[in-house]
Order: sequence, then structure tokens, then C-alpha cells
Amino acid sequence: MSEASTKAQNLLQGHLGTVEDHLKKGIIPFWFERALDKEYGGFLTNFDEQGKELPCPEKYVNTQCRLIWWFSTLSRRMPNMQKAQELAAQGVDFLIKNFWDEKYGGFYWKVKRDGSELDPAKIVYGESFCIYALSEYTIATGDKRGVEYAAKTFDLLQKYCADTHFGGYYENVNRDWSPEEGGFAGGDRKGLDTHMHLMESFTTLYAASGEPVHKLKLMQVVDLICDKLIDKASGCGLNQFDLGFNSLPAISIKRTWNGERLGEQPADPVDTTSYGHNVELEYLMQMALKTARAGGPKYEAIHKRLLDHAVKHGVDWTYGGVYRDGLRATGEAIVLEKEFWQNSECLVGFLDGYEQFGDERYLEAFGKIWEFVRKYMVIEGVGEWRTLLDREGKAIDGNIGNPWKVAYHTGRSMLECRERLLRLLA
Amino acid sequence: MSEASTKAQNLLQGHLGTVEDHLKKGIIPFWFERALDKEYGGFLTNFDEQGKELPCPEKYVNTQCRLIWWFSTLSRRMPNMQKAQELAAQGVDFLIKNFWDEKYGGFYWKVKRDGSELDPAKIVYGESFCIYALSEYTIATGDKRGVEYAAKTFDLLQKYCADTHFGGYYENVNRDWSPEEGGFAGGDRKGLDTHMHLMESFTTLYAASGEPVHKLKLMQVVDLICDKLIDKASGCGLNQFDLGFNSLPAISIKRTWNGERLGEQPADPVDTTSYGHNVELEYLMQMALKTARAGGPKYEAIHKRLLDHAVKHGVDWTYGGVYRDGLRATGEAIVLEKEFWQNSECLVGFLDGYEQFGDERYLEAFGKIWEFVRKYMVIEGVGEWRTLLDREGKAIDGNIGNPWKVAYHTGRSMLECRERLLRLLA
Repeated sequence: MSEASTKAQNLLQGHLGTVEDHLKKGIIPFWFERALDKEYGGFLTNFDEQGKELPCPEKYVNTQCRLIWWFSTLSRRMPNMQKAQELAAQGVDFLIKNFWDEKYGGFYWKVKRDGSELDPAKIVYGESFCIYALSEYTIATGDKRGVEYAAKTFDLLQKYCADTHFGGYYENVNRDWSPEEGGFAGGDRKGLDTHMHLMESFTTLYAASGEPVHKLKLMQVVDLICDKLIDKASGCGLNQFDLGFNSLPAISIKRTWNGERLGEQPADPVDTTSYGHNVELEYLMQMALKTARAGGPKYEAIHKRLLDHAVKHGVDWTYGGVYRDGLRATGEAIVLEKEFWQNSECLVGFLDGYEQFGDERYLEAFGKIWEFVRKYMVIEGVGEWRTLLDREGKAIDGNIGNPWKVAYHTGRSMLECRERLLRLLA
Repeated sequence: MSEASTKAQNLLQGHLGTVEDHLKKGIIPFWFERALDKEYGGFLTNFDEQGKELPCPEKYVNTQCRLIWWFSTLSRRMPNMQKAQELAAQGVDFLIKNFWDEKYGGFYWKVKRDGSELDPAKIVYGESFCIYALSEYTIATGDKRGVEYAAKTFDLLQKYCADTHFGGYYENVNRDWSPEEGGFAGGDRKGLDTHMHLMESFTTLYAASGEPVHKLKLMQVVDLICDKLIDKASGCGLNQFDLGFNSLPAISIKRTWNGERLGEQPADPVDTTSYGHNVELEYLMQMALKTARAGGPKYEAIHKRLLDHAVKHGVDWTYGGVYRDGLRATGEAIVLEKEFWQNSECLVGFLDGYEQFGDERYLEAFGKIWEFVRKYMVIEGVGEWRTLLDREGKAIDGNIGNPWKVAYHTGRSMLECRERLLRLLA
């Protein structure tokens, strides 16, 4: 072995060690100890910077599903995880009992902690997480209830939300699946975010079911994203669109995180992009293509541009970590804060890019982000990540869990990085 | 009443008389006497120029449905039609028993005369006629089986055929709903014809069900047609497309009439249009908009251009009747034959245009076509129409019924003309 390759091996080995350490001593025990709602079943999601439980009056379908997904995937990827299967199963019980709409089908957007009704709207972002979690649950446990409800939800999306005029899916609908109003209710908007998550969930659904129609619709959403949701000029993801996929200035929409976080202003101007979404999109599409046994130079070129834009402009090569948002055309970062999910996803995506294209810059980017995350985001002695930091690493929102943030980004990041590092070292 | 308006009234009254006469003495008794398959149930479709039964070894779903539709609609539009309801009902029995696919859902393309399996493919054109006929059947009879199977078929189309990449529907799929191969099997093509018939069937489905999702998908297909399937330059309908709705030279496709008729060559060049389809499209869209309680100047402008192109270039002002095909850009007619269905549909469409826009040319066109049809197409003493004539009216194909031609175009034309004439005279 040459000196250079020995050095690279040592570097990867070092990363694997820190990733496994954080997973085993941090994220896994954190959620094992706290996620179960012992009173009502399902999961608690709200924890402060010290991991102390905060009031959890509402249960959102997306975070309930993200924890079902987490415990399911954990149980098949790490040894001795019987307890994870039990936690996932009781999460599925709670979900089906309290979120499933017996009248119209589909899962409600949120319920009260005890499972009683709160917001019965059908939000495609949330339905997509149901498909994702329930499919993963069946893959992990063999319990067919998961894929059965996932497939029913998929069918409802095709019937009510698929847009046969323009392609893609309506994203915001009412309980009875009729389209929501426009404006803040989002009935007249489509976005990259929801369509990317549909790609993610259809990938897992197809892996669980093997049904050709799940693959067909998966590839339709992959190709839609490639053709309409990515800016041809810069190679970056666009953000929001009208129903006809004309790019629009992003606005806050009800029931999305930015619509709920206090003090968030609509992103402005229109020509911004999220480095984190771009890199997440790259590796989720890679996984979609691998699962569908598809691929080719068209997709590779798109992936390379997504990664290159982010590695050049999104990584903070001075302080480490990934910026929140930048301008598409010049790449210039304009929102310099460091948020947990973009950093989680960029860790995976850059390792994915290094594995795929062998470009050293991606591995360096991984190192630069991982160093920043370990130093500032991870809470020592507690085992999870803060929500939001300023550019230099000072906490803006130090809390660990909220109705949007559980183990999905951070935990998945560690599991996916671990597997990529193991492959690279093999 | 002025002399001019008295003259117009007399003209309309005259048309009403000849239309009602042909309906009551021609088309209605023709099918009452011959359509029922007394041996196996369902309908016979093949008759020669004298109305004599020809061998009918195959039953196509489209013509079985067209006769279900015919007897259903007749029973609610004309008095004393109990027998029509009975004929429709036994047609529905035969359809559900022999065409419905218990394994994959949906209706087979064709069966043998006795109902045994022949071609179990799912062709969206055929599925659309099932939706159309079964919905009309429920409206006419109150038997809920119709709309129940229609709605199930609608759901299957949304799940398997709706294209979430480009919009619209895949048109040619296998028994298990997987897309057919490209080329002659048509898996890589979309067309105006199928999408226009989906608009037609979703209109009747929504009228029967009142379900908002049926209206939603109806308006999506209406708007898709307006935006992508009509040539912006000439205002005419385009013909065939790739999956992304790029206009392509028309080719013969398996299981479509032109693909089956001996000696038909692929239409060439690409820039042709069907005057008959254009005018049919106009009035079917009018009916769709009326049913959906939608409309507006955008649609009116499209309708006017469809009618004006056909009235100027498609009507044979010398010999009467409507030409088969012409060039989109110049309008020049290049296939001068006169076929039954284009003439049937133009009669309705031009009366529709006259009612809507008050333009005298449309009424003159109606007269010029109706005169030609009565003189050359209608078979005296037999009561139905020949299939195909040359420009001057000489029979090329004198037969009355075949696996594609029953009472749907001719009979609907007479019923729709009658209602428009009654309204105009009111």
C-alpha cells in the first residue's frame, strides 16, 4: 500500500470510528431512553438542550413516522435491536389507530398527544413520511400491516393528488382530499421538497413491495425532478413552483416548518437554493436509481453538478459546516447559519459523491462538516444535535427535539455514513 | 316576426323534422331489431349495407360499451323506451361477466363472441368507453352497478396510467397494467383521440357520481388538451405525441381502427389534422365545461378557432359533407373521402357553434353536411349509414356495422342535433 493510500485509509478509519462512537453512545441511546410516550403510546418529540422532556401537546404525523422509520431501520442495520422493533411496532399501532382516516383514507396531519383529533388535513409531505416509515417497518419486521397501509396511501395520492395536467402532485389538500386554497394554505404551489420526499418514500415502498407500479411512479418523480425542478443554468435545485412548474419566489406555507417557526420570513429573492437539499437530493436519487435498477450519464451529470455547486459554495471552508441558503446563479451564500438537517444530509451526500466519483474535494468537505458538527452541534454528554447555530458555531436554537426534528436526519446520517465508510474501507 | 327570422325558423324546423324522422324511422329501429346477441347476450356489431348480419366472432369492449351507452341514453331522452333499458342492462351483464378482470381490475380489450378470452390488454381508449357507458347507464336506469364499475375503472386509470412526469395518461397497457412496448404497440405514444375520449367519459362519470375528484380530473384533462394537444399556430388539434407531448408524425398503432383497417397507411406528413375530431372536440369540451360549471374566454377562443378552421377548410362546399383530413397550417384538405363519424360529429359541433356564437356559417355548414349525409350516406329503407364514401358520395365501404361502428356516432349525432334544434326553436 502506498503512503497516500495508507493515509486515506487511516482518515476513513478515523471517520468510521467517530461516526460509530456517536451513533452508539449518542443518538441510539438518546432516543431509546426518551422517545416512547409511556402514557399514550406513540412518540414524544420535544426535548431541550439537555435532553430534558418538554411539553408535547401535539403529535405531528411526520415526526411520529420519522421515529417509526428510525427504530425500524435501526433494527435491521445494527445488531441486537429487538427493543427497536418493539418501539417501532407500538408507533405503528398508535399511527394506525389515531392518524388513519377511516372515512376518507390517508393519515391526518396532526393529533393531540392522546391521539384525539387536531388537524385532519392531508399534507402530501406527511403522507410521504407515512409511506416511507411503514415500508421500512415491513422490511425490518416482516409485519405486513406496514406495506399494506403504505400502498393504500400511495393509491390515494395517485387518485387525488397526482396532477394529470402538469405532472407531479398537489401538495396541500383537505381532509377529504380536495385541494387546499392558494396562498398561505399552499393549494396553488408545488415544491422540490415534497417531490424529493416522494422519491424517497416511493424508493422504500418499491423495496418493500416489489410492485412494478411503485417503480413506475418512482421513476416518473425522478425524471420530473430532473426535468423541471432543477435549474438548468446553475444545476441547483429550485424551490417553489406554481402548479405548472414555473419557478416562483418562495413563500411561507401553512404546516411547513418555515411557516411555523417564529420570526421566519419568506425566502427572498426567488433565486436562492438550499445546499443541503441539493446534496440530499443527490444521494436520495442515487438510492432511488439503485433500487429501481436505473441510471446512466444523464443522472450522473445532474448529481455531479448538485455536489459541485455545494462543495464550492455551500461548505464553510473557514469555520466548517454547511451554510443554510445561497444564490443559485453565483453560488454566494447569503444565510450563513448552520442548521442540523443540512449538515446531516451533506455528510451523507458528500461521502456518496466521493464513493461515486472519487473526487477528493467531497471527502474533504465531509471532514470539514463532520469536524464542525462534532465540535458545535453535538451536545457533549447528551448525545444529540442542537437545532441551529450561527456561522461560528454559537447556539441560536439549542434544543434537540421538536415536532419536526427527531432522529431522522441525524440518525440516518450516521447510519448512511457508517455504511459508506465501511464500503470505502472494504 | 321578420321575414328573415321566419325563414330561419322554417329552416331549423325543417332540419328538426328530418333529424327526428331519421332517428325514429332509421337509427332507433335499426339497432332495436339487430343489436341483441340472442345466443350469448351482449351485442352484435357487424352488418352489411342491407343491414344483414355478418359473422361477429369478436366482441370489442368499445362497441359493446357504445351500444350500452346508446340504449341507456335513448331510454332517458326519448319516450317509451323500456325495451332500451332492458337491452342496456343485459349489455352491462355481459360486460361485467366477460370483460371485467377479476385479477387485475379493468376491462379486457376484446373477447370472443361467447365471452371467452381473446385479448385481455387494457387499452385506455376502451376503458374510457366503459366509464362513459356505465355512467350513462346509471344515469338512465338508477342501477348503481354502472357508476360503481365506472369509478373503479377511473381509479385504476389514476393509479396505473396517469403520468406524473408529463401529465396525461399512458394509453396502451398490458393486462396487468404495465406499459406496452413502444412502436406499433403504442406504449411510447399519447394522442388527442384518447385524451378527448377521457374528457368525454369523465364528463359523464361526474354527472353520474357528483364526486369532486371526478370533476378535478375532468378539468385537468380539459386544460391539458387546451395547453398541449392543440396547435397554437393553427388552432387545430394535433394528433400523436411522445410521452412528453412533443408532436410526432402519426403512425398506425395496434388495436386502433386505422391500425386494423386493411390498406391504411400511417398518416403522413406530421402536419395533418382531422376536421371531424376538431369539431367533435369543440362540442365535447363545451359539454365538459357545462357539466363542471366552468368556462370562460380562454375556452371560447379555442372553440371558435376549432370551428372556424373546419368550416373554412373541412366542409366540402361543392359536394357537401366533411373531408377526412387536411393540413393544419394551410387548412388544405388532402384526404377528400367522406367518412361516417366525422360527418356525424360535425353535424352536432356546427349546430353547437351556431347556438354558442350565432355565426350563420356554422348553420350553413350543418345544412351542407346534412344534405350530403341524407343523400349518400344514409341507406334508404335500411336506416343507418354507410362507413366510407368518396368525395362525390360513391360508396367505398358500404357496410353499416363493424367492431368500431355502431350507433354511437350516428345515433348520438341525431339525439344531440335534435336537442340543439329544439333549444334553438324554443
